[in-house]
Amino acid sequence: MQSTAVAHRHFLNGAASFPLSHFKPTPSTASPFSVRMSLREDAPSLAVVGVTGAVGQEFLSVLSDRSFPYRSIKMLASKRSAGKKYTFEGNEYVVEELTADSFKDVDIALFSAGGSISKQFGPIAAESGSVVVDNSSAFRMDDGVPLVIPEVNPDAMSHIRFGSGKGALIANPNCSTIICLMAATPLHRRAKVLRMVVSTYQAASGAGAAAMEELELQTREVLEGKRPTCNIFKQQYAFNLFSHNAPVLPNGYNEEEMKLVKETRKIWNDKDIKVTATCIRVPVMRAHAESVNLQFESPLDENEAREILKKAPGVIVIDDRASNHFPTPLEVSNKDDVAVGRIRRDESQDGNYGLDIFVCGDQIRKGAALNAVQIAEMLL
Amino acid sequence: MQSTAVAHRHFLNGAASFPLSHFKPTPSTASPFSVRMSLREDAPSLAVVGVTGAVGQEFLSVLSDRSFPYRSIKMLASKRSAGKKYTFEGNEYVVEELTADSFKDVDIALFSAGGSISKQFGPIAAESGSVVVDNSSAFRMDDGVPLVIPEVNPDAMSHIRFGSGKGALIANPNCSTIICLMAATPLHRRAKVLRMVVSTYQAASGAGAAAMEELELQTREVLEGKRPTCNIFKQQYAFNLFSHNAPVLPNGYNEEEMKLVKETRKIWNDKDIKVTATCIRVPVMRAHAESVNLQFESPLDENEAREILKKAPGVIVIDDRASNHFPTPLEVSNKDDVAVGRIRRDESQDGNYGLDIFVCGDQIRKGAALNAVQIAEMLL
Repeated sequence: MQSTAVAHRHFLNGAASFPLSHFKPTPSTASPFSVRMSLREDAPSLAVVGVTGAVGQEFLSVLSDRSFPYRSIKMLASKRSAGKKYTFEGNEYVVEELTADSFKDVDIALFSAGGSISKQFGPIAAESGSVVVDNSSAFRMDDGVPLVIPEVNPDAMSHIRFGSGKGALIANPNCSTIICLMAATPLHRRAKVLRMVVSTYQAASGAGAAAMEELELQTREVLEGKRPTCNIFKQQYAFNLFSHNAPVLPNGYNEEEMKLVKETRKIWNDKDIKVTATCIRVPVMRAHAESVNLQFESPLDENEAREILKKAPGVIVIDDRASNHFPTPLEVSNKDDVAVGRIRRDESQDGNYGLDIFVCGDQIRKGAALNAVQIAEMLL
Repeated sequence: MQSTAVAHRHFLNGAASFPLSHFKPTPSTASPFSVRMSLREDAPSLAVVGVTGAVGQEFLSVLSDRSFPYRSIKMLASKRSAGKKYTFEGNEYVVEELTADSFKDVDIALFSAGGSISKQFGPIAAESGSVVVDNSSAFRMDDGVPLVIPEVNPDAMSHIRFGSGKGALIANPNCSTIICLMAATPLHRRAKVLRMVVSTYQAASGAGAAAMEELELQTREVLEGKRPTCNIFKQQYAFNLFSHNAPVLPNGYNEEEMKLVKETRKIWNDKDIKVTATCIRVPVMRAHAESVNLQFESPLDENEAREILKKAPGVIVIDDRASNHFPTPLEVSNKDDVAVGRIRRDESQDGNYGLDIFVCGDQIRKGAALNAVQIAEMLL
């Protein structure tokens, strides 16, 4: 298995200088034993749609890391990529062209091929009896389509199970929403969040493998004194940052920001939750950071918040004031856990009704592929 | 005149791909005519303390760009840099070692050599009759020391004039505060800001010329697959970001953040103003960005806010939703104006009592050297 995303991951890991000891252990690459366990006849048949992309490749990596059981796996992509070969858990697979017939005998289909592909083929897959876990924004706000972060709102999909014979659509939230709510939800459960002000620091990976390549290429060019190549983004990204490239809506928010506003309301099942967001692209490879200001209905002091977050599944607290060690994108790259730190009482609010936190999470992993595979695990 | 800061500036300018047409014209390098005008007998004698640093070099550049009149100019630095030569406006100068005797016959001294040098030599210079404009944090919160952004609170220093024979200390605010308040003050004057939530995206230049060099070196190393050199910062900066390296205080805020909180109160002369800030270092060379959420006492709609900002001195509005063109650090690098965009009604507040804005400003220029020289201009 070789892809740009994976190459980038190794490249950055090789150069990184961070203490791995600060992290909980994360699942390692599947052992030969787990390989044998995951390929079994009573397990579901899988399809990965958009397998050649950054998230598609990460689907495979996460499935293997977590020993996800499967009877068969179908690798689907556009006609252009059909015929490409991948070795996955010791077996060779040929990428097939995605068509309306692709989903016969597919129990669970993981989609990450963009919104238009999802809109076209998601309903076809569901009608064929597949449970679709879709990483695009195509169905997220649709009534009847659960929008799920397994640690946050598993109940939203409790009526959907593999083996029922019925297809379904389940939506994976946007990466920024997942990373924000992984940290905010445990605090929300305790003290009820009334309002959130979010500013993001988003990595190249959110725009796909080609965007990561362009950031690397541009950086080399700028260091050589050349004009940077601007294909994916219309402006210089190396040593620069800019407002998220999603289209701007009539209210002045861009689509990325409104995903945070609307998806939070749906996931928390609270139409009154007040959220504002400013989404910014920074020259980082694959993990997002978010500065989150919280206003609560009930008081919550920073020590209790820290203890709550330390116990929260999928969350790691990195909050070492003495050595100025807090979450960074590099430290969470390729990690499952969302890291939270800078937990402190908000000086601009009275009493203990406000907190500031800083959150980092791997955009490709918990922000996309891992969350989708966790949703698939809940189907079993 | 050659320095690391200047080299970096040219290097990045050479590679940048941004439309200069979006900017108001800024002063060009002084013409031979203005050179003759600025060297004159009735003008003040100047000293630049810390002349070899990034801000020290920019002092010279800004003095020249603005044809600041002077009778003489003394270049001061540590013993280590003494003897170094600079050509400035056609004349050669030798850097002198900073001592207690340096300020005899100096009318205006621009300091940017760090807090401890300011604490030691600032009062000596003031007692010698010099008006000190100090870029460090040494005196900012001292009663009786004006903390001034010329466009915001010029009255705070109206009692201090060149030629009175009396020395004085005037403090230059922190870069993040200047850039934030350049945009927030015109709105504050109209609708009174009650609360501000700020998240910063701060450039390497804030940590000096050596930090800019380290970012460049680290980036080259990471691209070559090497471990990055971490001398200035204790962790990888290339393709990464981290909580600002200033010491963290007992309340969990770092010193950089508390500067924004406290300096805003002093500059706006309002002890009740509520500010919270999260300060983050991003891998950008020399301009800061800030995401600012504002709560107002009176309603202020986004169209009126935009018109107010368009008329504000030292501010340029870049707010083109259709083409997704908003302020970026690269576009404001080496520019005098602070750029503001993403001006929109805050979806998380009722009515028109809230706005979100995104601000970028050159950290070395308006965030430091330009503001100090503007203060000096007000003395004349």
